[in-house]
Amino acid sequence: MAEEKPEAQRNVVLVGRKPVMNYVVACVTFFNQGYNGIVVKARGTAISKAVDTVELLRRAFVKDLVIKNITIGTETVEREDRKSNVSTMEITLEKPAPSG
Amino acid sequence: MAEEKPEAQRNVVLVGRKPVMNYVVACVTFFNQGYNGIVVKARGTAISKAVDTVELLRRAFVKDLVIKNITIGTETVEREDRKSNVSTMEITLEKPAPSG
Repeated sequence: MAEEKPEAQRNVVLVGRKPVMNYVVACVTFFNQGYNGIVVKARGTAISKAVDTVELLRRAFVKDLVIKNITIGTETVEREDRKSNVSTMEITLEKPAPSG
Repeated sequence: MAEEKPEAQRNVVLVGRKPVMNYVVACVTFFNQGYNGIVVKARGTAISKAVDTVELLRRAFVKDLVIKNITIGTETVEREDRKSNVSTMEITLEKPAPSG
């Protein structure tokens, strides 16, 4: 069986309830695997943690990290019989290829 | 006495512990006063609330709101005898001037 990873999911780090460091390590792992771009995504209260993740990554691990783009939006979540809106955030990160 | 407001502070909405709606109303008030640009700022866990504020403002009150720029950063806070880092976020909003 060929190894299959859905292309769109591959470089996404979805920030949730785990400690910030888990997501930082996930980003570092992606970069070490040779990926240059990562999208850090979060919803609701995890948005603050997504920012913490990117800032910790930039300060402590990937000094030349480039924050390419930050977008925010809203998703409608249906839970039981009521709908609610939840804010979303996507931070696109890039690590420049080593020169020389 | 002349009315004095510090220029740099005027269009800033600093999101903190109050309900989201308070900050939405603050933004609407600025726009109604004729300002075209607002910066929504937050630190730490209030960052999620800043995103909620902008999204609610955009969905419910200012349909043509333009999110000009989103930046994140880190501030060092000294509390008692220990230093800690706190993430920061600034969302720059613009309301296009009514045409025609």
